Amino acid sequence: MGNVFITERRVEFCETDAAGIVHFSSFLCYMEQAEHAFLRSNGQSVVQPVSEGGYVSWPRVKVECHYFSPARFEEILKISMQITRLGSKSVTYQFTFTSGVDNLIARGEVVAVCCHVMNHGESIQSIEIPEQLRNIMTPYVCSK
Amino acid sequence: MGNVFITERRVEFCETDAAGIVHFSSFLCYMEQAEHAFLRSNGQSVVQPVSEGGYVSWPRVKVECHYFSPARFEEILKISMQITRLGSKSVTYQFTFTSGVDNLIARGEVVAVCCHVMNHGESIQSIEIPEQLRNIMTPYVCSK
Amino acid sequence: MGNVFITERRVEFCETDAAGIVHFSSFLCYMEQAEHAFLRSNGQSVVQPVSEGGYVSWPRVKVECHYFSPARFEEILKISMQITRLGSKSVTYQFTFTSGVDNLIARGEVVAVCCHVMNHGESIQSIEIPEQLRNIMTPYVCSK
Amino acid sequence: MGNVFITERRVEFCETDAAGIVHFSSFLCYMEQAEHAFLRSNGQSVVQPVSEGGYVSWPRVKVECHYFSPARFEEILKISMQITRLGSKSVTYQFTFTSGVDNLIARGEVVAVCCHVMNHGESIQSIEIPEQLRNIMTPYVCSK
Repeated sequence: MGNVFITERRVEFCETDAAGIVHFSSFLCYMEQAEHAFLRSNGQSVVQPVSEGGYVSWPRVKVECHYFSPARFEEILKISMQITRLGSKSVTYQFTFTSGVDNLIARGEVVAVCCHVMNHGESIQSIEIPEQLRNIMTPYVCSK
Repeated sequence: MGNVFITERRVEFCETDAAGIVHFSSFLCYMEQAEHAFLRSNGQSVVQPVSEGGYVSWPRVKVECHYFSPARFEEILKISMQITRLGSKSVTYQFTFTSGVDNLIARGEVVAVCCHVMNHGESIQSIEIPEQLRNIMTPYVCSK
Repeated sequence: MGNVFITERRVEFCETDAAGIVHFSSFLCYMEQAEHAFLRSNGQSVVQPVSEGGYVSWPRVKVECHYFSPARFEEILKISMQITRLGSKSVTYQFTFTSGVDNLIARGEVVAVCCHVMNHGESIQSIEIPEQLRNIMTPYVCSK
Repeated sequence: MGNVFITERRVEFCETDAAGIVHFSSFLCYMEQAEHAFLRSNGQSVVQPVSEGGYVSWPRVKVECHYFSPARFEEILKISMQITRLGSKSVTYQFTFTSGVDNLIARGEVVAVCCHVMNHGESIQSIEIPEQLRNIMTPYVCSK
């Protein structure tokens, strides 16, 4: 079934809106932060300098999020991450947000493409995912 | 084919990120702002008080965004909005972001559900879209 | 000299801007989050329901921030908080941001007024700081 | 008394918080946007490439904001900007936010330093404000 990377995130006040709940755009930041935490927990950064110059990064090409239940200020969200597709040049992360004992808040998906970036974004080219990163990601691939 | 609601949005500095481009979460705010501008241009607000108490609002249940080309600080984005589905209780907006003469930046979709809200969000119930709002939306439905 | 409340905050990607550094407005969110963490560490929330109805909250009336050195993505900021003034109805927090061994990033100040809020903000009245909260704050007052 | 640069800003939903009002950090973004609008209205950008390489930019070293009255979703804020100090290398902008007929919302100040930036922020050096920019700013200096 694949490993699950789990992290937590407390809702901050500046992430709520006048409806009294977390603004729907904040979940994209939460997903990105979970992705970065995953990479960091494996000694990697989402922006990784490479010896031949420039760096490897992961621009996103698609995001999707389904909202089931609102989240509120100071609530602690549990974020469970898996990889639903590991292509040769791209990765699809799936994130499930719950609070308390199993209250489903949201479920989202991010597709990021492995790229070599030169000159601060002036030249960007998709590349095969380096073996070191692929090895980190592979255990989290689920067959869904 | 349906009408197209068109609005513009200049990229502000606080919406960019260290990759030098608009942060991907900002597009959700742009979509929401276009939706609100659409309602406003028809004399409506996304938060509409009702005579029997409480108000009608539109919590979102799904959002999706595809990113084709980065947008940068001070660029003016043209946002074209149509309605791809008008259900009895929900509406699906589609947004296309372009810059310059036809440079496709992003395309996104938001599904919002018409709800009656009481007591500042403590009671929320989905309702049929009121006729006045349905009449405003209908011309923007496209068959795609 | 007064106690110092210390917390940490990792810079997230969505908080950076196209200059490659933390956007200057993000420090206000960091200050607010440190204040909330301080209250939480004492079993309090910045939004505290009261038995006679409504809740006690702390609208801010002034903020100030001095920037000394930029902070970057994934950097861990150490935030040291003291209280520079504890009035009968207001509190002045001072926050010092450092990274690494003593690299001064920023220093800021927030003045918040203790208020009783009814009906979701429709009626707001400044009140004397309740004794329970004053007792929590007093040890952090520094004479500076 | 000096000219006053005036611009407007409608409060967007994502800028509000669970207290039902504009989050206090959003005013820093509004100030920055007014500053950029001022420069743009004079054919300048806050990030101005220079012929000898790199660009001129304006990192902020201090910000201050006083909050007098809350602002709410969809409200239109009038932002009046003047320059309270024009030094050889820095400028102090003052912003006054009002709504309706003269309802004072907030007043803030930003101190920005003129800098020459090389290599995307790796080398930053304060410089004398170029004459072209100084000429644009001078009429907005008020003696206050």
